[in-house]
Amino acid sequence: MDMIEALTTNLSKLPGIGKKSAQRMTYYLLRADSNYLNQLGDQLKLLKERVKCCSKCGNYTEVDPCPICSSAKRDGDIICVVEHPQDLITINSTGEYGGLFFVLNGVISPIDGIGPDDLRLALLKQRVINENIKEVILATNPTIEGDTTALYVYRMLNDTGVSITRLASGIPVGGDLEYADKQTIARSFKARSPISF
Amino acid sequence: MDMIEALTTNLSKLPGIGKKSAQRMTYYLLRADSNYLNQLGDQLKLLKERVKCCSKCGNYTEVDPCPICSSAKRDGDIICVVEHPQDLITINSTGEYGGLFFVLNGVISPIDGIGPDDLRLALLKQRVINENIKEVILATNPTIEGDTTALYVYRMLNDTGVSITRLASGIPVGGDLEYADKQTIARSFKARSPISF
Repeated sequence: MDMIEALTTNLSKLPGIGKKSAQRMTYYLLRADSNYLNQLGDQLKLLKERVKCCSKCGNYTEVDPCPICSSAKRDGDIICVVEHPQDLITINSTGEYGGLFFVLNGVISPIDGIGPDDLRLALLKQRVINENIKEVILATNPTIEGDTTALYVYRMLNDTGVSITRLASGIPVGGDLEYADKQTIARSFKARSPISF
Repeated sequence: MDMIEALTTNLSKLPGIGKKSAQRMTYYLLRADSNYLNQLGDQLKLLKERVKCCSKCGNYTEVDPCPICSSAKRDGDIICVVEHPQDLITINSTGEYGGLFFVLNGVISPIDGIGPDDLRLALLKQRVINENIKEVILATNPTIEGDTTALYVYRMLNDTGVSITRLASGIPVGGDLEYADKQTIARSFKARSPISF
């Protein structure tokens, strides 16, 4: 296998990239600047060495604990529990939340063979007790697996006396009732709230 | 800028990849196998060093002249002129053509500042004369630039006495007259041929 074919094969392993897109990338790279290629090559080779998981929250970081966990500006009384590091980035980028995080790196999913023991939940409970956390926000996705995981975490933390909340689920802002599914509408009815402007 | 952000920025420079796709790739790579990352990193860093342009046809190759130019099995009387190396791969993969190639690496396009001198056309003419070529097939795209380039090459080679042909242009196989544009239909009328089964 020659270089072009080998590179195309490896690029086609990236998520969302098929054979045609990978080929297009390869020919783009052949015309690209050498500096860019060297930089990207080094970044890939050093990625795993430089980026580790934060020992506190589980998010990817180059320093341990990560900047969020070690920040004095964050509210140390609240932990937001998310499925994946990407969810943490998404929530953090809204600027709505100033507390700490805990990344499960997965959800309870018997089909995929992922049980509660795979999600570092003991560490979460330990943090809630040791750091005297006041509130745990369960921000797993509103899917079967996410809901199951939220319920499991709720039961696990129930005896610690911490306040446990779940992100509101309902019709997206800018969304349309007509196109919302039944379960979303049902949830938005259950979680209806008095109007306040 | 941290490692994750830097890698995402570089990945988003790839063709067809926006910020969201680049982020998805980065998180995929963070979970990927180290061997894969090292391999891909090395391929990117060595790409320009290993892969050069063939001095005869202009196609990307690791050996000069490239395997097609140096193959004894190819018909050395015919040269197929294409715009880009990808076109060569596409034509070659059909198995319909067994001759040699010449890659222009572009087309005449005054808007982009690309004139005939940028396309190594002197080398093409020299090859046609020196290698005693019988036929030149112009396989540039049926676009304004591709047609202009084909016409230019035709005029340039006219005095050499070589037979010059152009790839047929018309309704694609499996296509539908209803959805074909006027120019395609016009071309398919002009190039109509007697039925033979």
